[in-house]
Amino acid sequence: MLGTNDTPFTIAGTTLGSRLVMGTGGAASLLALEDALVASGTELTTVAMRRVSRPRPSADPAAAGDPSVWGLLERLGIRALPNTAGCFSVREAVLTAQLAREACATNWVKLEVIADDVTLLPDVIGLVEAAKILVDDGFTVLPYTNDDPITARRLEDVGCAAVMPLGSPIGSGLGIANPRNIEAIAGAASVPVILDAGIGTASDAALAMELGCDGVLLATAVTRAADPVRMAHAMRLAVEAGHAAAGAGRPPRRERALASSPVGGLVAVGDNLDLAL
Amino acid sequence: MLGTNDTPFTIAGTTLGSRLVMGTGGAASLLALEDALVASGTELTTVAMRRVSRPRPSADPAAAGDPSVWGLLERLGIRALPNTAGCFSVREAVLTAQLAREACATNWVKLEVIADDVTLLPDVIGLVEAAKILVDDGFTVLPYTNDDPITARRLEDVGCAAVMPLGSPIGSGLGIANPRNIEAIAGAASVPVILDAGIGTASDAALAMELGCDGVLLATAVTRAADPVRMAHAMRLAVEAGHAAAGAGRPPRRERALASSPVGGLVAVGDNLDLAL
Amino acid sequence: MLGTNDTPFTIAGTTLGSRLVMGTGGAASLLALEDALVASGTELTTVAMRRVSRPRPSADPAAAGDPSVWGLLERLGIRALPNTAGCFSVREAVLTAQLAREACATNWVKLEVIADDVTLLPDVIGLVEAAKILVDDGFTVLPYTNDDPITARRLEDVGCAAVMPLGSPIGSGLGIANPRNIEAIAGAASVPVILDAGIGTASDAALAMELGCDGVLLATAVTRAADPVRMAHAMRLAVEAGHAAAGAGRPPRRERALASSPVGGLVAVGDNLDLAL
Amino acid sequence: MLGTNDTPFTIAGTTLGSRLVMGTGGAASLLALEDALVASGTELTTVAMRRVSRPRPSADPAAAGDPSVWGLLERLGIRALPNTAGCFSVREAVLTAQLAREACATNWVKLEVIADDVTLLPDVIGLVEAAKILVDDGFTVLPYTNDDPITARRLEDVGCAAVMPLGSPIGSGLGIANPRNIEAIAGAASVPVILDAGIGTASDAALAMELGCDGVLLATAVTRAADPVRMAHAMRLAVEAGHAAAGAGRPPRRERALASSPVGGLVAVGDNLDLAL
Repeated sequence: MLGTNDTPFTIAGTTLGSRLVMGTGGAASLLALEDALVASGTELTTVAMRRVSRPRPSADPAAAGDPSVWGLLERLGIRALPNTAGCFSVREAVLTAQLAREACATNWVKLEVIADDVTLLPDVIGLVEAAKILVDDGFTVLPYTNDDPITARRLEDVGCAAVMPLGSPIGSGLGIANPRNIEAIAGAASVPVILDAGIGTASDAALAMELGCDGVLLATAVTRAADPVRMAHAMRLAVEAGHAAAGAGRPPRRERALASSPVGGLVAVGDNLDLAL
Repeated sequence: MLGTNDTPFTIAGTTLGSRLVMGTGGAASLLALEDALVASGTELTTVAMRRVSRPRPSADPAAAGDPSVWGLLERLGIRALPNTAGCFSVREAVLTAQLAREACATNWVKLEVIADDVTLLPDVIGLVEAAKILVDDGFTVLPYTNDDPITARRLEDVGCAAVMPLGSPIGSGLGIANPRNIEAIAGAASVPVILDAGIGTASDAALAMELGCDGVLLATAVTRAADPVRMAHAMRLAVEAGHAAAGAGRPPRRERALASSPVGGLVAVGDNLDLAL
Repeated sequence: MLGTNDTPFTIAGTTLGSRLVMGTGGAASLLALEDALVASGTELTTVAMRRVSRPRPSADPAAAGDPSVWGLLERLGIRALPNTAGCFSVREAVLTAQLAREACATNWVKLEVIADDVTLLPDVIGLVEAAKILVDDGFTVLPYTNDDPITARRLEDVGCAAVMPLGSPIGSGLGIANPRNIEAIAGAASVPVILDAGIGTASDAALAMELGCDGVLLATAVTRAADPVRMAHAMRLAVEAGHAAAGAGRPPRRERALASSPVGGLVAVGDNLDLAL
Repeated sequence: MLGTNDTPFTIAGTTLGSRLVMGTGGAASLLALEDALVASGTELTTVAMRRVSRPRPSADPAAAGDPSVWGLLERLGIRALPNTAGCFSVREAVLTAQLAREACATNWVKLEVIADDVTLLPDVIGLVEAAKILVDDGFTVLPYTNDDPITARRLEDVGCAAVMPLGSPIGSGLGIANPRNIEAIAGAASVPVILDAGIGTASDAALAMELGCDGVLLATAVTRAADPVRMAHAMRLAVEAGHAAAGAGRPPRRERALASSPVGGLVAVGDNLDLAL
């Protein structure tokens, strides 16, 4: 499409047709989630692992009508990205990733090592350590991190396939608290940078792309909106808009006004008139 | 289209298919302008009046190959909105509007009464006065004003068909300096509110719509971009994205984090696994 | 004192020893107000006019122990600046100013022409008109205006002795919404510029001065603080701090880091050591 | 003084009379530095260690007229806080701290483990590691860190005597990029929090204190100002102002205006007049 997605969005050799990565948390129902995922155009969606007390009903959840996120994503042809949400230690995160790999038949993982259940901020020391272990174990690691450019570099150095800095805390909808940091991360990284957490509305997503991010990951901004489908559509457009704007080369900001229309040689009574370019 | 433009954008009884109003100032050439206008999807475009020394070449500029903005807009089927750019007094602005009406066969006018050629800020006292004169004279007046909610109300009170507050100074690209004021204007107006001036990139345009504006007017952000066509496309998407997001009802901002994925009942070794909603 | 108040703060020929102008609105009691005024160091304080149903108890309120703001200011030696708060038309404001002049024996007036009792924003068209009338009638006019640089210029042009732009709406405590506008007003004015309305805390007051204001006017930030005396003291220091910082010439902002300590030639084992400048 | 410094500012059992910690980098001369230090009122000042090629001229630098920062601080009675500026690894930082302890006869150290000489951002993984080593070695460690609340907690957990988060990059003067993070750090810490790096002007310093910091550390904002003495004075006042404001309990921000003066029962012709509280 003219002006958008002209450069492919590729993670670990896999090219995705959409720069919008969705999360599934917060959806009111599977049906509501399905409509929102379709409207978003996403091709990659995170899912949380959880313990279930009963066996899975069938070897092929989609065929069996299994009302799970997993079945839904399979049916929609959306790649699932298991995450380690709720893991508060390196050991927990690594173990969860390994179980997810087995259960989901993918070596991709959105790595979260969360410091505590109040701030939900990443524990960057544990994160780098867990990332290293998982990379060595053959995973394609997409770590959720804070907006520190140095930590982002470390994650890339240990072999992560992308870095996913937060804009602001999970679920806050506060947007991008420190745009300079995000711009610095995006400017320095040689792997894709995906803004993860804090997006509250479309302009936040557009801004993330304008700062140089390669993609945006969001969940509750869509799933908890009054009209999730409409917000999913808004986010799809916003990510494309921001990416196109980043590529279009905006004019520099100016502290002073600059006339766009000519201010000299203007209309006078009795003269012939034309319209100015 | 699902999720966008569901409510019509109507000015003085005329419904427009796009909420993006373009300006023509700053374009490198007529050809570049044409491509950008097409990519923007705009159906309303402002043009400045200027004095010309030679008569217009033909009664039908498009047919005659007249290399004018006027001819271009006619050919593209875009409604022309003459402006009074460069007018520094009520008298000048009124006269220019009247001449434009005659020359362009439209009673729509983007009214500018500019205080000086450095700040290019509106002279709101002259603006209200000129608006009253032109409304009484049968014009459909779309005034370029500052972001003062009270002046916006005055302009509506004297009969303007829309109010067009600035985000920041003309040509600055500084975005929306005072979002609360724009939100207050949009929330109180019963005529369309079009953000005019200051838009620098796509996220600015999306934000304007999220604040409740009915449309966005911009020129140099597109015409002076490195790739005007791509930026025009970005702006088109951004305006749709912001409008859809405004209609979708974003979740409220939260000062504290809120988990989107479940943080309790998580994976443990040896248990059956499923993916959490 | 070295570094502060080195240039006198003079309004209409009267030099004031403090750049902090206080308002009296919102105080819990006259006693609380007195303590706060003393702690603030102010030498100029606004008072609102109101109708009273009983005659004033004495010709000399201070001597008679009149529990009025007027008596308090007289006793403290603080100049009273009557305001026209609550006036919604030119006529009301002019009349109130004239009555205040008679009642208070001062031709200074803080001119307010308020658009409505919800926004409490100034009606700038009425404001300029009322200012002109009062200047012609011999008043020293200090108008409360919005942050529009053009309106500020108009107020100066009609002969106002100062201009007093808002930072944000009265009583909001939202600080300075549009610092560029305040800086533009302060940079262009040849009369004193006093930031009026919106100050919520000390850093707001310091910022106002750093943007080039000559003084700051505030009321509820002090009178409605949990500890008004301590906040008054904070504001006194903040205004001095901001004024000194403005005069001290801050280093320019830099998008990139710059080492303050030397990064080359550093310590190595076995070498002599010294401390670097 | 009433309203300021009412709670003592104590680091590792040592109470300081000023909450402004100064750096010495960037000063034009020792003489200029001396004047600025005196004007700042500081009682704690950081100094960088560097290698010198010649032996120190005397055992008692001050007596010998040694033109060193060390001698200056001794003469002024200001406690010296050696830093590890320019150290890019744990080993370098630990070694420098140990040498500084020997040279300066203090076990206090401002610990810096810098990631690279372009961003000058802290390497938080190395920082926590070095902090642990130095705490175990008996140091009183004051670490320069980023604005991540989790890293701040880790530094406190390993026994640091304070945490010193950046507002923005060293020498940038960009102020406090992420006030919510600073507020979160200050709200959670049980050791003193000192805002370190990024302060550009007085209002930045006041804001740091209002966000709950216990102190502010700055260098180039003063040493590179056009008038360092005046800026030092401004910073001294700003820190006191911000601290007093934080303690005074500002009124909550309000999205809507709130009259401070009464808007009802106002002046009418012929009535008795009084001044409203």
